[in-house]
Amino acid sequence: MTEKLILHEYAASGNCYKVRLTAAQVGVPLERREYDIMKGETRTPEFLAKVDANGRIPVLQIGDRFLAESNAACFYIADGSPLIPSDPFDRADMLRWMFWEQYHHEPNIATLRFWLQYIGLDALGEVRRLQIVPKRQAGIAALELMDRHLTNRDWFVGDSMTLADICLFAYTHVADEADFDLELYPSIIGWMERMMTDPRHVAFGD
Amino acid sequence: MTEKLILHEYAASGNCYKVRLTAAQVGVPLERREYDIMKGETRTPEFLAKVDANGRIPVLQIGDRFLAESNAACFYIADGSPLIPSDPFDRADMLRWMFWEQYHHEPNIATLRFWLQYIGLDALGEVRRLQIVPKRQAGIAALELMDRHLTNRDWFVGDSMTLADICLFAYTHVADEADFDLELYPSIIGWMERMMTDPRHVAFGD
Repeated sequence: MTEKLILHEYAASGNCYKVRLTAAQVGVPLERREYDIMKGETRTPEFLAKVDANGRIPVLQIGDRFLAESNAACFYIADGSPLIPSDPFDRADMLRWMFWEQYHHEPNIATLRFWLQYIGLDALGEVRRLQIVPKRQAGIAALELMDRHLTNRDWFVGDSMTLADICLFAYTHVADEADFDLELYPSIIGWMERMMTDPRHVAFGD
Repeated sequence: MTEKLILHEYAASGNCYKVRLTAAQVGVPLERREYDIMKGETRTPEFLAKVDANGRIPVLQIGDRFLAESNAACFYIADGSPLIPSDPFDRADMLRWMFWEQYHHEPNIATLRFWLQYIGLDALGEVRRLQIVPKRQAGIAALELMDRHLTNRDWFVGDSMTLADICLFAYTHVADEADFDLELYPSIIGWMERMMTDPRHVAFGD
């Protein structure tokens, strides 16, 4: 890649961490710009006009173009690398897990983590408070599905790490911060260890 | 594609329609198997064991392999066709809109349509009932974002139809069934007309 990559981010967001982890795995340098979402820094007129009309991070800047949505940013960075399978079925199956992550995993596990750790139970309104139980149940169902899938395999798709693993790792490995008990899922534990001992791995806080 | 494609579906689901529309655009034959989700036919032990452990439709069967998640199924069918841009930025930007659809559009517009048209307001529990207003607001924000994006362009990405258009069209063109007023969004109306007058287009009910 010849154009400079800038990640517009909030470092505590797992969605932003996915992009950093992908860049580290591919060996691509990434400049970082931090925004405090708790102070509304991604909803300013300037941010909305220039970086993302949807007012959200992460956004990957490629030269003077902007790409929103964490999993799409990961795809751009990893395009042409072994993190995206060349086999058409495996490539689509990788995307299957990435879409599944955004629909069944992130809105439950990441949202509960954000509500409990960043907003705080006492500050949650009634509508959110009532969603804690259904989100807890759906989050457990997501972790159980992952654990069963990993029973007889090392990686989500094929026989090596792909973007599916990276995108699912981001919020799974901090699910305890949303009060999920990861010790219940031995296959997930083994898979997380494979992720974390990979020589190119970078930790969330790095 | 040499292997037979079978779509396991519930015909009234916009997520299933996306897959049929993609197949029609590419000119690939698709065999269809219908399940009644209102009767729990995707949660039977047989379905969970054979078709999809997540218990959901659509699932695309390719020979004896199964691929879940509507947008991933569309990607598989369209892989190598002009519906997926060859330019790396445009390809990732197409995926951006597809991830955005699953996170910001479908859970609001499609879910409200399902609750209001298929379950019915009177049968909704308290937790769902309280989410109607926030989902309505988020759905309107999604439609406004689409309308602004389409102000000066014919298609979501580049200068021709891509999977981003197909995946966003599915639930947008029936948003009135969830009580959204599409007449408020003239650029969306123009884009829907371009979609529906395309010679390869198939309608939802076909």
